[in-house]
Amino acid sequence: MQEPSDKALVPFVSVDHMMQLIHHIGVANMLRGLADYIEADFKRWERFDKTPRVASHSAEGVIELMPTSDGETYGFKYVNGHPKNTADGLQTVTAFGLLADVETGYPVLLTEMTMLTALRTAATSAMVARALAPKGAATMAMIGNGAQSEFQSLAMQSIAGITHVRLYDTDPAATAKCAANLAGTGLAVTRCTTAEEAIVGAQILTTCTADKALATILTDNMVGSGVHINAIGGDCPGKTETAPEILKRGDIFVEYPPQTRIEGDIQQLADDHPVTEVWQVLAGQAPGRTSDKQITIFDSVGFAIEDFSALRYVRDRITGTPFFHPLDLLADPDDPRDLFGMLTRANG
Amino acid sequence: MQEPSDKALVPFVSVDHMMQLIHHIGVANMLRGLADYIEADFKRWERFDKTPRVASHSAEGVIELMPTSDGETYGFKYVNGHPKNTADGLQTVTAFGLLADVETGYPVLLTEMTMLTALRTAATSAMVARALAPKGAATMAMIGNGAQSEFQSLAMQSIAGITHVRLYDTDPAATAKCAANLAGTGLAVTRCTTAEEAIVGAQILTTCTADKALATILTDNMVGSGVHINAIGGDCPGKTETAPEILKRGDIFVEYPPQTRIEGDIQQLADDHPVTEVWQVLAGQAPGRTSDKQITIFDSVGFAIEDFSALRYVRDRITGTPFFHPLDLLADPDDPRDLFGMLTRANG
Repeated sequence: MQEPSDKALVPFVSVDHMMQLIHHIGVANMLRGLADYIEADFKRWERFDKTPRVASHSAEGVIELMPTSDGETYGFKYVNGHPKNTADGLQTVTAFGLLADVETGYPVLLTEMTMLTALRTAATSAMVARALAPKGAATMAMIGNGAQSEFQSLAMQSIAGITHVRLYDTDPAATAKCAANLAGTGLAVTRCTTAEEAIVGAQILTTCTADKALATILTDNMVGSGVHINAIGGDCPGKTETAPEILKRGDIFVEYPPQTRIEGDIQQLADDHPVTEVWQVLAGQAPGRTSDKQITIFDSVGFAIEDFSALRYVRDRITGTPFFHPLDLLADPDDPRDLFGMLTRANG
Repeated sequence: MQEPSDKALVPFVSVDHMMQLIHHIGVANMLRGLADYIEADFKRWERFDKTPRVASHSAEGVIELMPTSDGETYGFKYVNGHPKNTADGLQTVTAFGLLADVETGYPVLLTEMTMLTALRTAATSAMVARALAPKGAATMAMIGNGAQSEFQSLAMQSIAGITHVRLYDTDPAATAKCAANLAGTGLAVTRCTTAEEAIVGAQILTTCTADKALATILTDNMVGSGVHINAIGGDCPGKTETAPEILKRGDIFVEYPPQTRIEGDIQQLADDHPVTEVWQVLAGQAPGRTSDKQITIFDSVGFAIEDFSALRYVRDRITGTPFFHPLDLLADPDDPRDLFGMLTRANG
């Protein structure tokens, strides 16, 4: 049998290889690297093909494809969201992604993205907090201590400079898990028994809870002035975390308004409520934080460009490493018109 | 290091495994099997989520995602179309696809689809010809002798009962390649030097040429009555093969009108030109061929449900075979909330 040609082989990063790659680079280093790639892509936002994700909804959850392209490279992520999965011992969110060369249409990277999405989500939050949080912010309240909480904490430490996290979850076991995982990271960790307690003295308030119901994790009277709210968990229709009164008192920053107005915390506000696109702040085209007293809110739902940046980062980092293997994904006959001959010759 | 759990492992069919599977089943058997799966899914057409493909166009070509779901299973195909690739020794079309469980969102199959698309396209053509071609059709003109031509010929033999193919291509080397590949298949093969010669005595006329320009492969005076035209190559905006006069003389059958009106040969006709959806014929809801003199035209552009059927077929056939390997695609921690702990424990 003929061996597949180089062009037929697509580098594949398995979950195990991704975890090895993360440890090889170091979690903090990788979060910083991802934040830099994401920021660079946000700064050239207008060069991207942008489209709301392509979603297939069912009673149990959603399966989405998130494609984008910068004209040279095409990327997409497959991701599901099934809140009930946890009860069956499955992940709520699993994902994988692909990069391809726009000129030929040939894939150049296939990778797991469950781990990678956890890192890119945290890197995005912290990159935005670096731009919007009050100067000298040192303490973050981390409300919701599920799968994303440690990544958020470490990203805020390595990218936005926080030194303390105050943890709260309705389930004390989740808080204990998060605190245990953060031991030895250099972060000072305080376990709290109420959300109110968690936000005491915090300049950054991160909400990342898993309820699929309209919930109010942050109520109006809990939030004073001069904070940055990093609202992660209000990320699909019917799922919100922040009281509309707080949203109205603050200035709201989003990734891609057509998507955030459907999926984000601002689904609770009028369709024309003013928002600022984060890329404009990063590119110097719109103001970010303008006073110490201001409440800034990053209503984050995740966007395809963040995945694209993460895929670019992985592609650039795996070269020369053992953290991938070539996958025989593409039929590539010697004569492109002779696919059948390739098939025939494989029989023997 | 912990081994990935069963749920984290997705069966992957490489190009090599796909070719072995095809030979294991037999090409003709597999074409018949695929036709049966596709016909079964066409007959339950209304149960599917249907959406035009999600395309990212560039100067050189297009990259598309083609998702669909029947409410229990979700599938999508990644496919590119880059006509200039052939000149660089690359495939015009490469593809891979995925099936997932709608209830959990977890992928259950990842497979190459360059080979599989070649088979499903041919199986679809022949399944439709079986329904629409004149009774007793024995001879097919195969105009365009590229990568799809042998698959079309074998599918028409094993599914629609033809015994003769008459080959023509602007490049005699392509015709010679196709004729050589069909030797020993039981088909009588005639090489022709003009398209006019190829259609002499043929009841089925298949056009599958690669030009991305508006071309007229079949002109009005070439086509008499009582034939079935299987128009494969008019499959993207600006790419057509059949003279509009023929289309107007015949009855036109399509997969999914919103897509075919943009991509198919009928892009040359008025937006409201009457067409019949093939699934309605197969389900007994619309007439197919109604007379021996009629010209029936299947203006085929390919649709996501055909890929879905092909993915289902492969999933059902690989069980218990060695023609796949488990791919470590999904992070699946013991505790779904402890993705970070899974990462930490991998470092050792």
